[in-house]
Amino acid sequence: MNTSRRDFIKTAALTGAASTLLPLTACKSESPQKQINSSQVYVAIDEALNKPVLKRELFSSPVIIETIELLRDRNNFICQVKSADGAVGVSIGHPFYSKIGYPMFNRISNHFIGKDARDLDTLIFNAAVGNYRLHGIPLNVQMATLEFAILDMLGNIANKPVGALIGNLHNPEVSIYLGTRINELRKSEPETSLDLMYKDWEDTKAKAIKLRAGYGHNVGNDKDNAPGRTEKLVKLAREKFGEDMNLMIDGNGTYTVEGAVKLGKLLEEYNYYFYEEPIPYEWYEEQKQVQEALKIPMAGGEQESRLHTFRWLIANDVFQVVQPDIFYFGGMIRTKQIARMAEVMGQTIAPHMSSGGLGYLYMLHMVSACKNAAEFHEFKMFATKDANGTLIPVESKTEPFESIDGVINVPTGSGLGVNIDPEYIKTHKPIT
Amino acid sequence: MNTSRRDFIKTAALTGAASTLLPLTACKSESPQKQINSSQVYVAIDEALNKPVLKRELFSSPVIIETIELLRDRNNFICQVKSADGAVGVSIGHPFYSKIGYPMFNRISNHFIGKDARDLDTLIFNAAVGNYRLHGIPLNVQMATLEFAILDMLGNIANKPVGALIGNLHNPEVSIYLGTRINELRKSEPETSLDLMYKDWEDTKAKAIKLRAGYGHNVGNDKDNAPGRTEKLVKLAREKFGEDMNLMIDGNGTYTVEGAVKLGKLLEEYNYYFYEEPIPYEWYEEQKQVQEALKIPMAGGEQESRLHTFRWLIANDVFQVVQPDIFYFGGMIRTKQIARMAEVMGQTIAPHMSSGGLGYLYMLHMVSACKNAAEFHEFKMFATKDANGTLIPVESKTEPFESIDGVINVPTGSGLGVNIDPEYIKTHKPIT
Repeated sequence: MNTSRRDFIKTAALTGAASTLLPLTACKSESPQKQINSSQVYVAIDEALNKPVLKRELFSSPVIIETIELLRDRNNFICQVKSADGAVGVSIGHPFYSKIGYPMFNRISNHFIGKDARDLDTLIFNAAVGNYRLHGIPLNVQMATLEFAILDMLGNIANKPVGALIGNLHNPEVSIYLGTRINELRKSEPETSLDLMYKDWEDTKAKAIKLRAGYGHNVGNDKDNAPGRTEKLVKLAREKFGEDMNLMIDGNGTYTVEGAVKLGKLLEEYNYYFYEEPIPYEWYEEQKQVQEALKIPMAGGEQESRLHTFRWLIANDVFQVVQPDIFYFGGMIRTKQIARMAEVMGQTIAPHMSSGGLGYLYMLHMVSACKNAAEFHEFKMFATKDANGTLIPVESKTEPFESIDGVINVPTGSGLGVNIDPEYIKTHKPIT
Repeated sequence: MNTSRRDFIKTAALTGAASTLLPLTACKSESPQKQINSSQVYVAIDEALNKPVLKRELFSSPVIIETIELLRDRNNFICQVKSADGAVGVSIGHPFYSKIGYPMFNRISNHFIGKDARDLDTLIFNAAVGNYRLHGIPLNVQMATLEFAILDMLGNIANKPVGALIGNLHNPEVSIYLGTRINELRKSEPETSLDLMYKDWEDTKAKAIKLRAGYGHNVGNDKDNAPGRTEKLVKLAREKFGEDMNLMIDGNGTYTVEGAVKLGKLLEEYNYYFYEEPIPYEWYEEQKQVQEALKIPMAGGEQESRLHTFRWLIANDVFQVVQPDIFYFGGMIRTKQIARMAEVMGQTIAPHMSSGGLGYLYMLHMVSACKNAAEFHEFKMFATKDANGTLIPVESKTEPFESIDGVINVPTGSGLGVNIDPEYIKTHKPIT
């Protein structure tokens, strides 16, 4: 059954797609330059990449970005933007990394202040190119935070949820997979950690569960926290959750090529659904080797911060489920560009999310607007603690956030679709 | 003559080297995994990579890092470290980027505080791996700043210059190339900009001069500031400086593969010495294509912040002159590892430097310790203004900094070999 999983994912992603393309072969042609210029793959994915994302036609007149404020309360950051006509947008920063790179915020916001927000695609492109030496997750988190606030403002103006500004609402409901209990899954005995996982499953009735393989931490040395732990976890989880549960596993960069392939064979034997990031994320060549050696669908991309590298990963079919992190990759416009390129290759998209903050909210909107969204999406509970450990006082404008039988409704209100208590925002003061 | 330039560079780099290796072919073998595991290239460069760098044998007892302070005066940063035995080391931060990522400093220094500085190789490795999500230039600048201060401290203890702590002093003198006038070279008429360049040449008598091609800014779109400007500059510079001058050119990421190859052919016709970064630095596949299409030696790597990616660039012989930036790549230990890997491949090393700060000082020490140092090294004058525009009150402990006939003596005093006015340091206060 597992031998056809990749084909299944491709078929699902390509439903309604205009064309499908074979992946690039691993071996370059004799004239690599010719290959790039004429390659059907790169031509097709570049066409997808270059399509406009923001639906400019929703706005009949300019939306000038008059003020951009980054507000701070200790470790937590909020972005607030206002248009010349008084429209407002608000976003909550990343729970871990906003504070790491906030001095870079001005280098991003300089590209937006006084500009027409209808040019958002271009403004984001310029902000990325204009800071090319600073590329990486800390910079992208700043860009994403600003973009979320601008999309919230634009949604409030158009009276539409942000997903409808960057795509059609393909997915008003999102099916989740549980990505919780990272530490317990790694450090406890397999039996204990699966008992804890079972509790989260009872709370959410998620239709898919993701486990953790190896030591993690992007080390690429095949270490584990105890001998045989991962192999035991793989087998016990199948026993505990049964044949019908969709089980995934995430290596978080634990393995060498050899170790990754070995574990991958076991996952194929136990019919796992996908196999995420076994190799350190910067080992691009080796990731391709693992993918070629296995049949199980490969998932990855959460740490990737560079557009051109993602383009290569997609063109080479390194992952069948691509997982850009909306924060780490610099926002929804760029993530939508990844989704479109992936669609050309018959790959699905499942955005990565960190726990805490409003990650689940941004994920829901993003997935709503992706035609080739994966079957299940990462979910780490509605754990809306901010970077100071404070519960974010947020509620959906429409219906409460809940997971019913593993499905969450995307907020349908305008913008990000939430109300944030103004008193909470007031504790945050502008950074000068 | 230009057809043999690459061979010449290889010969120079390999003088005294144990062995030489052919570069990897562009086409992967049928079994890529086997290629990696058995490849003579990767085995050899990994052996070079894994050799200890810091000469531990110079220190008979532990050097416990007791305090690490990041000091700030407006935009400028200084790092000061002290050992449990009272030895002190000081470094001046990067003139542009220290302020961009300083909240990351603690995530680096946490890996060093209370540790034995003799384990510097391992501490640096751990700090990089432990912050894998934050990889990039802003993080590496923090790591380099701390490492320079620690090396200064260790040099003061051993009574040796920092170059002698990380290698043999292969190069007590460093020949320079002029890398000045970046903006004038791009934006003025070719005649005007060459007149200005001539002035810097008269001041330094540098034996090599680097020009600027295209629009720059890592855009990869073949733009120029005026039609035909670069082609004219290439020809006029050869006329102005004569047949014997070593002329280089830096594209700063201006070109597509097609544009880069076209300009490269002109450079070959006019016998240029090397061709730097024509393609945006993140276009790895395309960089390899340009290198394969040309005979002129290619130079690059200044923006590269990741060890594994540099390893790939070296193994694939993408650049014949590798140019890690000591700050952007995270310090001298890591840069020495690049130098050693490059040596295996017969490539030379010419560290990149930004203008301002103490870039020239760090460059001199680094080059002193590299067996396969390039013939000429980037120099942007002794322009020691700090991030606030203040002239840094610094003097060599031994003899004055000057360029005599294009050659600069590496300071021979202990540590970084300089005295910095304590009153200047005092205007900088610890960040809490």
